[in-house]
Amino acid sequence: MKGYLKILFFICCWGTGKAQQSPGQTTQKPNIILFLVDDMGWMDTSQPFGDSAMALNHKFHTPNMERMAKEGILFHQAYANSVCTPTRTSLISGMSAARTHITNWTAITPNEATDFKDDQLTAPKWNINGLSNIAEQNTYLCKKPLPQLLKEAGYFTIHVGKAHWGSLGSGGSDPMNLGFVVNIAGSSLGHPQSYYGEQNFGNMPGKTTFNAVPDLQRFYGKDTFLTEALTQKAIAAMNFPVENKKPFFLYLAHYAVHMPIQPDKRFINKYLAAGLDPTEAAYATLIEGMDKSLGDIMHYLKEKKIEKNTVVIFMSDNGGLANAGRGGARNTQNLPLRAGKGSPYEGGIRVPVMVRWPGVVQPGTRTNSYVSAEDFFPSVLEMAGIRLNTPVDGISYIPVLKNPAMVKNDRPLLFHYPNRWTSNEDEGYAWSSGMRYGKWKLVYLMKQQKLELYDIEKDLGEQHDLSKSDPQQLKELARLMTAELKRKGAQMPVWKSSGIPVAWPDALVK
Amino acid sequence: MKGYLKILFFICCWGTGKAQQSPGQTTQKPNIILFLVDDMGWMDTSQPFGDSAMALNHKFHTPNMERMAKEGILFHQAYANSVCTPTRTSLISGMSAARTHITNWTAITPNEATDFKDDQLTAPKWNINGLSNIAEQNTYLCKKPLPQLLKEAGYFTIHVGKAHWGSLGSGGSDPMNLGFVVNIAGSSLGHPQSYYGEQNFGNMPGKTTFNAVPDLQRFYGKDTFLTEALTQKAIAAMNFPVENKKPFFLYLAHYAVHMPIQPDKRFINKYLAAGLDPTEAAYATLIEGMDKSLGDIMHYLKEKKIEKNTVVIFMSDNGGLANAGRGGARNTQNLPLRAGKGSPYEGGIRVPVMVRWPGVVQPGTRTNSYVSAEDFFPSVLEMAGIRLNTPVDGISYIPVLKNPAMVKNDRPLLFHYPNRWTSNEDEGYAWSSGMRYGKWKLVYLMKQQKLELYDIEKDLGEQHDLSKSDPQQLKELARLMTAELKRKGAQMPVWKSSGIPVAWPDALVK
Repeated sequence: MKGYLKILFFICCWGTGKAQQSPGQTTQKPNIILFLVDDMGWMDTSQPFGDSAMALNHKFHTPNMERMAKEGILFHQAYANSVCTPTRTSLISGMSAARTHITNWTAITPNEATDFKDDQLTAPKWNINGLSNIAEQNTYLCKKPLPQLLKEAGYFTIHVGKAHWGSLGSGGSDPMNLGFVVNIAGSSLGHPQSYYGEQNFGNMPGKTTFNAVPDLQRFYGKDTFLTEALTQKAIAAMNFPVENKKPFFLYLAHYAVHMPIQPDKRFINKYLAAGLDPTEAAYATLIEGMDKSLGDIMHYLKEKKIEKNTVVIFMSDNGGLANAGRGGARNTQNLPLRAGKGSPYEGGIRVPVMVRWPGVVQPGTRTNSYVSAEDFFPSVLEMAGIRLNTPVDGISYIPVLKNPAMVKNDRPLLFHYPNRWTSNEDEGYAWSSGMRYGKWKLVYLMKQQKLELYDIEKDLGEQHDLSKSDPQQLKELARLMTAELKRKGAQMPVWKSSGIPVAWPDALVK
Repeated sequence: MKGYLKILFFICCWGTGKAQQSPGQTTQKPNIILFLVDDMGWMDTSQPFGDSAMALNHKFHTPNMERMAKEGILFHQAYANSVCTPTRTSLISGMSAARTHITNWTAITPNEATDFKDDQLTAPKWNINGLSNIAEQNTYLCKKPLPQLLKEAGYFTIHVGKAHWGSLGSGGSDPMNLGFVVNIAGSSLGHPQSYYGEQNFGNMPGKTTFNAVPDLQRFYGKDTFLTEALTQKAIAAMNFPVENKKPFFLYLAHYAVHMPIQPDKRFINKYLAAGLDPTEAAYATLIEGMDKSLGDIMHYLKEKKIEKNTVVIFMSDNGGLANAGRGGARNTQNLPLRAGKGSPYEGGIRVPVMVRWPGVVQPGTRTNSYVSAEDFFPSVLEMAGIRLNTPVDGISYIPVLKNPAMVKNDRPLLFHYPNRWTSNEDEGYAWSSGMRYGKWKLVYLMKQQKLELYDIEKDLGEQHDLSKSDPQQLKELARLMTAELKRKGAQMPVWKSSGIPVAWPDALVK
């Protein structure tokens, strides 16, 4: 259990850190594409991430994900935070959300906590404006986020799509401020006003909100779906580094498949014909449009003959929506996983992750190694041959890419959410911490003052709480979670009645 | 008079043209900055463009323009079209507006002719959606505009500010579509909704119009003036090519000093103290803010030690506003020049132009050579060592930069405006053609069926019409203008009563 202690973590201190070339790095740095999907669940694909295809896999058509799985490595135990901004800020900072104090999604406009009102608990003073590299902000977290380090190492860094690292007016609201050379359509918005070119993606005077997607004027009034427009722009943006033989980092973060769940008419008929209700049919078209984008990107790489020197990383930022707004009964959309986005149960945090890296990754492999959002930061830097002097919370998964059988899973993965998302409080949708450790999963429901224990290897659906039957294991994990939270400087919500913070989880097992 | 015939023009045919490296080109290509101001008049500066400082020069404070004049070459006879889109499309296509048929400013939304209603005349079918490189558009004019050619030659091409090459949905509405690697704040809008960061540059849900400036989220809610925000973004965008030792082309097209004439509070007090009325004081702050931007850019070049290998070109896109909306009496804002933006008189088309190019341009020089908007295309290409196989209307002014005394002025410069701008029809603000040829100026007022002749050398203010006293010269120039119009495939407006196009100018002197 103490294996994880060998790994040293320190407080984030990029100000003094320097990016360096790894001495062993060849001059031919690989291009790196981080293909990030929004709100895509672990089951929202025809490519099984479970041991075999299950019911929901048959609902979707994602041939390009299937192809990617055949050509790369699949992580079936990959994790993110349960809502988007914490995952996105962890991705480019390498830090746990428990440490960044960006634990909830950030509002478009500044200084607005997004926590849903609660009678008993108040959220801690988390960084409600998100990530910033600007000293004047109250969220002065990192001088050198991932794109900045890559840019300094000679990468041409491209941002396309949803940013959502911080509120308007913050440094994080502008991807170019975080080291991206090119920014297309990224701002502080968390979802598009409209996916439709016919609706100018929301840019309609009189109706325009802050969720109108910028930078896609070329497609206004046309029947180009947002996912397609972003793909075309991403491909156009890659041309410069490709033609100039510069290594590039493309962060292609689709707005899909986040609400509003609007049908992409290119794909809708077959899903309606398959008997899906209109919402779920529309949702499936968002998935298939995203999959087509993945295929188009891979086609481009082949066409430009850079396929072999380009790493493609596929990821979603949190679990699939299951709380409200989807077709069918609540909390069924990620089955067999429990609950969905916003919850510490697997449906909220387990996400599809694949990596395609010709020459490094053995095609068609699958690993039991778990990974978490903050691991992408050191992993991408290692791909680029950049060594950091200052440690971060994440750990590079490059050794796993090279040897998928090398599974440690001996460090705790923490999913700390001292916030309340929506009106619903069931299934952990508010005030929770989750932790994976080995085969175990600990869930701390703060408001209920309850700990739950699951054996994920045997009980993927988290149906059998072992907290009563295995009190010793519960105690050990509660202490571990407490230590992890404290070491990362995690914040806890406060009881309104007393003004006292919620107890650390180990208080429940003393 | 026939000297100009030696210059061969052909129909635009970039499709078959290829950009090539000039054999004599060194590997060290210069960086090129085109600093374009919107609606800035020839007199809107403390740097005299006339033979000596005149009254209006004392109204403005532009120390950085003064510095640039000391360090570079000043063209006091530089011309643009009388409204913005025609100049901007000529700049990046090398083609006369008479040939592109983009003769008026383009609306934000597509398929809207912007011509003011007229009882007697109808505008021809000009390219109301502006420039496009998209075959599906009705404005398929050029496959390779200036930024595209520069990009293909290895330049890192940056667009910052006002684009206004075409309407929403057109290829021209997206600078990245025209060969810019980076686009910041450029779209189809012709002026900003607001210059104020406090007003999010217009991005205020419920109030947002199509004139809201995109891409500046970082400055929302802050007291950053638009000109300053664009400058900071431009400097940030230059960092990548500078750090990677790539030559760059920065097209920094300020929204200033176009309407709305909003005061920049950093500079307002001294202009009010000087007794200017509030509108003119605000206008002067737009000018000074623009001048500060020029200074900041030059400071950046020095700081990065690239000053000596960077060409800076200063230009305005048309004459200063004098028709309506300014302080003081109409048509006095560009004195001693006559009229202003929208007019074929000098106030509408004569613009401040300077070029700073250390090692090539003798500091503090001044040339009598005239230049026109379409000349910038071949000039910039020559700076970059790119040779075109296909000719354009413009002629490179590089020989003049090297030898300011080399003045030919033996080709006609045409300013064709078969359109109507506003409700005012005086002073040529509708349905006109202008032509400079040598010392002469011919003005064709179509609706009035009148030709006017001026000797610009003796009569800068166009107060003495010589059409009656020199009928022979009038006839020669009317024929020359007719030949020029026909050779470029110019369109003429149509009489509503008869359906017949307006007569060519030579019909008036037969």
